[in-house]
Amino acid sequence: MKIMAINAGSSTLKWKLFEMPEKKTIASGMIDRLGTPKSIFKLKYNGQKIQREEAIKSNDIAVLSILDALKDMKIIEKFSDIVAFGHRVVAGGEYFKKSEIITDANLKKIQELAEYAPLHNKVEAYYIDVFKKLVPKAIQVAVFDTSFFVDIPETNYLYSVDLEDYKKYHVRRYGAHGTSHRYIAQRLNEIVEGGIDDKNVIILHLGSGASISAIKHGKAFDISMGFTPLAGIMMSSRSGDIDFSIIPYLMKKLGIKDVSEMIDILNHKSGLLGISGVSPDMRDIEAVEDTNTRAKLSLEMYRNRILKFIGSYTAEMGGVDVIAFTAGVGENSTEVRGDIMSGLEYMGLKIDKEKNKQNGAENRITTDDSKVTAYTIPTNEELMIAQDTYGFAKLLD
Amino acid sequence: MKIMAINAGSSTLKWKLFEMPEKKTIASGMIDRLGTPKSIFKLKYNGQKIQREEAIKSNDIAVLSILDALKDMKIIEKFSDIVAFGHRVVAGGEYFKKSEIITDANLKKIQELAEYAPLHNKVEAYYIDVFKKLVPKAIQVAVFDTSFFVDIPETNYLYSVDLEDYKKYHVRRYGAHGTSHRYIAQRLNEIVEGGIDDKNVIILHLGSGASISAIKHGKAFDISMGFTPLAGIMMSSRSGDIDFSIIPYLMKKLGIKDVSEMIDILNHKSGLLGISGVSPDMRDIEAVEDTNTRAKLSLEMYRNRILKFIGSYTAEMGGVDVIAFTAGVGENSTEVRGDIMSGLEYMGLKIDKEKNKQNGAENRITTDDSKVTAYTIPTNEELMIAQDTYGFAKLLD
Repeated sequence: MKIMAINAGSSTLKWKLFEMPEKKTIASGMIDRLGTPKSIFKLKYNGQKIQREEAIKSNDIAVLSILDALKDMKIIEKFSDIVAFGHRVVAGGEYFKKSEIITDANLKKIQELAEYAPLHNKVEAYYIDVFKKLVPKAIQVAVFDTSFFVDIPETNYLYSVDLEDYKKYHVRRYGAHGTSHRYIAQRLNEIVEGGIDDKNVIILHLGSGASISAIKHGKAFDISMGFTPLAGIMMSSRSGDIDFSIIPYLMKKLGIKDVSEMIDILNHKSGLLGISGVSPDMRDIEAVEDTNTRAKLSLEMYRNRILKFIGSYTAEMGGVDVIAFTAGVGENSTEVRGDIMSGLEYMGLKIDKEKNKQNGAENRITTDDSKVTAYTIPTNEELMIAQDTYGFAKLLD
Repeated sequence: MKIMAINAGSSTLKWKLFEMPEKKTIASGMIDRLGTPKSIFKLKYNGQKIQREEAIKSNDIAVLSILDALKDMKIIEKFSDIVAFGHRVVAGGEYFKKSEIITDANLKKIQELAEYAPLHNKVEAYYIDVFKKLVPKAIQVAVFDTSFFVDIPETNYLYSVDLEDYKKYHVRRYGAHGTSHRYIAQRLNEIVEGGIDDKNVIILHLGSGASISAIKHGKAFDISMGFTPLAGIMMSSRSGDIDFSIIPYLMKKLGIKDVSEMIDILNHKSGLLGISGVSPDMRDIEAVEDTNTRAKLSLEMYRNRILKFIGSYTAEMGGVDVIAFTAGVGENSTEVRGDIMSGLEYMGLKIDKEKNKQNGAENRITTDDSKVTAYTIPTNEELMIAQDTYGFAKLLD
């Protein structure tokens, strides 16, 4: 059964085609710089890589170009060979507690929830509609970035503001990266001896966006991202948590009138980029850290913020048994993982330095006698989306 | 040598007269509701308590009424019997790294630093000037709430925003309650076996304003309050840390145009008050927690935020040896201390339940075999101010 996972952004469209339930990747690809005269179309299939530059002017044409390419390459015979499409949706609010099949009512709800993720939900809802029209026989499923965290304890999702702000306006911690955290939790449950149902786990999703989750006894317990993905640890170009009072002060100093402009600065010009002045990319920063003091400082701050979150989640869960690193930086930086683990030796964590040298692969990176076990685990949000989608598709088959 | 410690707010003026170096309190008092027709004048001396209601219209009259009362009661013969006045000053910026004798230049600098604490520095500078004029022979000393934290590591005082915001506009973590944290650290160094120079300490100043500090090897290492005292843990009516993104969202929902109005809400209508809907006062909340679910929730959130800070400071210091509770709630709530310590049992902390029942006194509240030692220690900011002031006065004697 062919199932496609879709991850749509404002100017990108990523996809992966799976054979389910075998979890086999058939083909994958992405369109970048969508809407510009020089859009980039990439496709991987059977060891071949295709890349071409062409003007892909609209979301509709983008979808059609992917489906047509699959037909041209004989990966599918007709569009409806793909029986289901699973869509990543950023904001599910408190309404979507799990992945859902798209009905008209659900699609409307996703559009309404754009209030929480203006850049994402609208474009995601639009793509769902395009796929529905182009492949009417297939089912569409929405997989939400937030649903994994909807049921964390209220002490953890509430902000210490007026409780009416939650009751009336739904101000709360929603979190993000839920599909990744859920995948890693599921994978840990398979590989950790005895599973994770009686354990306290901390998952570090360290990509350009980065978040840390606490998983207590198999269930999501806390998440560093908050009402929006701006909150939590320092990221590539996002500040993470700061003292809110600096905002009106900085607005005055910088001559900024509109708060949304400050949010833009905190999202795009802060974090590792803001401190290092070098780049938002960890690889660029690690490359110059020996000679550039600001780059070095940014790495030290990044480590500090992560250690603090690990410590705080350890305290609120009453201890930690397992830590997992995932996403771009988490999977690929021996240095970042090593720096963080060295700060956790006080907990009885013992690094396996040889194993920590390996990147991009599933790996236990602490010694046998380490009191806290740490892993590198490559994330696979697309597979998680395909699994959820398959769950609906097999019922209708 | 008679030395007076002064703690001035916008509508209050607290004072304490000491005999130094004996550290003996001679008299103390406060004026409340200053500037209203029903100001309250309180004075304690030799077991007597005086309280009267009268119109104290200006800061100048307030100071005069205190000094006159001391003369009338024969506590002093003439104003200049008080050889030095020590003033609490909220914001010292990066300029004041320790307490300083007031020169014209220093007074001007304190006025300039009002930018960081608009409600405080101006009125404090004004009072310094009044005392200087009324008792020209005495010296005036400024003791800053921030100076204890000026030299924490830059990874801890910098925000993960554009580094230029620090360089140009001095945006950084300044902290607050420094005089209290410094006093408790000094006291711990006296009572903890072997002192604290080789230990990691966490101090919980839990009053209506509340802050948590990390003291590593005898030196200030981190502080939960930030650029302003709005940051950090949940407080009586202050939110502490929140996701900044909720601000523009709430402003839209609540029809608020001015960011400073939001800051006001976060300072005065949030925290324990905002969640409980009962009161900003811990005693009122504890009184109804069994029957009022919002009161109970507010206590659980308060505990959660404190545990998270303890965990994060433990992680960034690489372990913790000593924890101290101080200020109104910290000194007087067996329940709050017990709730927090019960959350730290995973660290090997063992509560001494009998000793924790005692309030308002210096006390070790963990068992002999506890891996982390906890104390209740009443704070004494006025004594700290008097000590610093005496340090200058004795040189000039």
